[in-house]
Amino acid sequence: MRVVLDAMGGDFAPHTPVVGAVQAAKELGTEVVLVGDREKIEKELSRLSYPRELIEVVHAEDAVPMDEQPAKALRRKNSSIHVGLQLVKSGEADAFVSAGNTGAVMAIALFTVGRLKGVERPAISAILPNLKGHTFLLDVGANVDCKPHHLLQFAVMGSAYARYVLKEENPRVGLLNIGEEEGKGNELTKEAYKILKEAGKKGLNFKGNAEGRDIYSGDFDVIVCDGFVGNVALKLSESLAKILAKILKEEIEKHFISRLGAITLKPAIKGFKKRIDYAERGGAPLLGIKAPVIISHGSSNAKAIKNAIKTATQFVESELNSHIEEEIQKFSGR
Amino acid sequence: MRVVLDAMGGDFAPHTPVVGAVQAAKELGTEVVLVGDREKIEKELSRLSYPRELIEVVHAEDAVPMDEQPAKALRRKNSSIHVGLQLVKSGEADAFVSAGNTGAVMAIALFTVGRLKGVERPAISAILPNLKGHTFLLDVGANVDCKPHHLLQFAVMGSAYARYVLKEENPRVGLLNIGEEEGKGNELTKEAYKILKEAGKKGLNFKGNAEGRDIYSGDFDVIVCDGFVGNVALKLSESLAKILAKILKEEIEKHFISRLGAITLKPAIKGFKKRIDYAERGGAPLLGIKAPVIISHGSSNAKAIKNAIKTATQFVESELNSHIEEEIQKFSGR
Repeated sequence: MRVVLDAMGGDFAPHTPVVGAVQAAKELGTEVVLVGDREKIEKELSRLSYPRELIEVVHAEDAVPMDEQPAKALRRKNSSIHVGLQLVKSGEADAFVSAGNTGAVMAIALFTVGRLKGVERPAISAILPNLKGHTFLLDVGANVDCKPHHLLQFAVMGSAYARYVLKEENPRVGLLNIGEEEGKGNELTKEAYKILKEAGKKGLNFKGNAEGRDIYSGDFDVIVCDGFVGNVALKLSESLAKILAKILKEEIEKHFISRLGAITLKPAIKGFKKRIDYAERGGAPLLGIKAPVIISHGSSNAKAIKNAIKTATQFVESELNSHIEEEIQKFSGR
Repeated sequence: MRVVLDAMGGDFAPHTPVVGAVQAAKELGTEVVLVGDREKIEKELSRLSYPRELIEVVHAEDAVPMDEQPAKALRRKNSSIHVGLQLVKSGEADAFVSAGNTGAVMAIALFTVGRLKGVERPAISAILPNLKGHTFLLDVGANVDCKPHHLLQFAVMGSAYARYVLKEENPRVGLLNIGEEEGKGNELTKEAYKILKEAGKKGLNFKGNAEGRDIYSGDFDVIVCDGFVGNVALKLSESLAKILAKILKEEIEKHFISRLGAITLKPAIKGFKKRIDYAERGGAPLLGIKAPVIISHGSSNAKAIKNAIKTATQFVESELNSHIEEEIQKFSGR
């Protein structure tokens, strides 16, 4: 198993990717190909001890900035993302992991590796914590204007990911909507509801409409929506969690007695952080691409990178992509 | 000033509305007309002491269930919402407040009182806490499929509310979108951006795209979106805040030392709750209706009801609706 890691992606690149790659090699025994500025990568590597046979460096002289438009990023043929995805396309590696510019990874993956058979719109996913486990949400930004049958494809792909990679036995699929009852929603979701209900007869475990609150309720394993709504939901969630923590901290600092007590909370806060921490989950897949591609959060630490590499190996081992092709064929007949 | 209060609306009706009405009469000196089941209301009133000249009861023999479809609720001509809004329409009262079924209030208000001149789509708003104050978000559910110029109307109405009722000097308006730059978004927001930018030249303080995270950043006073996205954002926020608090509590209970410390946190938690508590804000307006209508959260306590009545009086005193008619005329020429 060889996983390509974009050494130039993320807020702390190349330091964090290199440390994460070394952790993956040591702890998981995974072969990692680090792609990016060779000199910088080797400088980072020189400070670490690691199994030499498991770490390889491939030079890429360019890197995609975190906020660059995908269309512009596509033109950087020597970027670490481009060079890395070429290695996967040519068969020299099995999967690609990046904590870089998500839109750019999607665009370059589409351009180099291409779509799976039958998939019209690959999707970006997010794995969010809920009270009982995790909710797999897609699309969160690749497709801002969707047709109803695109949501069916997201449901099929998300359900397959939950089943084969996350090992959920019979993933419960919900349609993000503004009411529980059938018939609620906008033009897109009203129509998508009918199509998903129909797919339920062929074996999709469609549980009906999910409301905004259900993203965190734990009542659904997979929730589908168009990429506009998903992106707003994802960014809102990240910021709300941060802001609530900040307001709580400000209030603790205001009250002397609370300041004293706060220290005893450390173990609880640590447990809390572990439960809501993306680093524990290790990245979310792009689905519908002809190769396993995992995106890590831009602010990933080394552990998150290591876990993303682990997720990539599970993606490969599960043979998810052939399952997706089969099921897309079965459900949408496309 | 006479405010009609739906005594049958909310999770704890008629108890909570009656207590809230009495608080408003005593503390604010506002005349309140309680509409609903006379017998039940008078039973609640009999337990309280209050200025008799400020509280009136009007009987309505029916009530709209919290989760009833608006179309069905419209048929209940003797519901407290219907009877209450008729009192406002006929000029016997100045404003209407309900903690009941939002969709039903909107539908019945449209049917009885009607739209303001020039307003195509009245909107439901929400007032959300941010790090610096509050964000006024609209639409959060009345209009699930919008045209770009509807978003302009929301911006004009929201901006007027922020200026005349919330007393923001020059409210900063944002368009909820999936990226900061012009040109980002789906078909709706790309087009709406152009229209809002144009309105900026006529005096609307349009600050560009707001992302999901900006709902809580405090960088915008008013954020506009279609009612589907707004509804998802609102419900998601409410549940995420609850779930984060629950996870923190579970973790505190797991750790003995944290359990001990938790008691010292009480003043901080109290301050925290106060800052994120809807009760402090007292309801959100329906905008674009030919009478002041304020919706309180279904789980409102008496204080929230009192504050909603206060908001209704401010809505009336500010003459907001004539400002909205003028500005809709100025900006959209409709």
